[in-house]
Amino acid sequence: MGFSLRSSTTPLSIQTELISAVYTCVTPPPTYPPHNSQRDGSMLTWESNQILGVNSILEKLESLPFQKVAHKTDTIDAQPSSGSVASLLVLVTGQLMVDDSPNPIPFSQVFQLMPEDGSYYVQNDVFRLVYG
Amino acid sequence: MGFSLRSSTTPLSIQTELISAVYTCVTPPPTYPPHNSQRDGSMLTWESNQILGVNSILEKLESLPFQKVAHKTDTIDAQPSSGSVASLLVLVTGQLMVDDSPNPIPFSQVFQLMPEDGSYYVQNDVFRLVYG
Repeated sequence: MGFSLRSSTTPLSIQTELISAVYTCVTPPPTYPPHNSQRDGSMLTWESNQILGVNSILEKLESLPFQKVAHKTDTIDAQPSSGSVASLLVLVTGQLMVDDSPNPIPFSQVFQLMPEDGSYYVQNDVFRLVYG
Repeated sequence: MGFSLRSSTTPLSIQTELISAVYTCVTPPPTYPPHNSQRDGSMLTWESNQILGVNSILEKLESLPFQKVAHKTDTIDAQPSSGSVASLLVLVTGQLMVDDSPNPIPFSQVFQLMPEDGSYYVQNDVFRLVYG
């Protein structure tokens, strides 16, 4: 099981629920709960570093030099990404608040979420800080 | 046929070619060449407007109030988006230069590109301006 988003929900109606669930899953330690949200074939591109597989992804997220991370989302857009399964493509733009820094850093992140057993897991995850 | 990106090329090696091809396809008029880069099931989310199908997408792009648009790409990340077909998920961050404005506007855009007859078409396209 991945995180507890109902896979029967439509793209238009789920965005708050979706992103709350996503960021609960992907926030780095010490608040990072694995939640089994990736699989062996899952991919993460973090600031150009390409990482394959749940174990390597967890290792990468756990190695990030943050003590506290919070995501403030500004925009969330979702589209169905397949005609055959109920997968979702999600683009998030927002601000990353790291540790006690007063200066949030804009970021953009895209996920592809795949349905599994009534919930979703993260198949693709691309994260970029945006320096204006 | 979509645009002329070789579908046999790997995600890691194609990024310059890829994005040049993508933005040649999606730049709005008067430089917008349709290039048959969308299909009936293609989706565009443009600043939260959700548009389905090649005809509606072309109509939307042609209605944008720009005379000249140029994309300066800052980052491009691609991942395979499917285990069964050679589709690609691409996150682009960059700056949009509109008409003769001296102030570029940061944007983030995600595409899902689907292989077809040795090239690709745009199945998913989500565009967001990023106000820092």
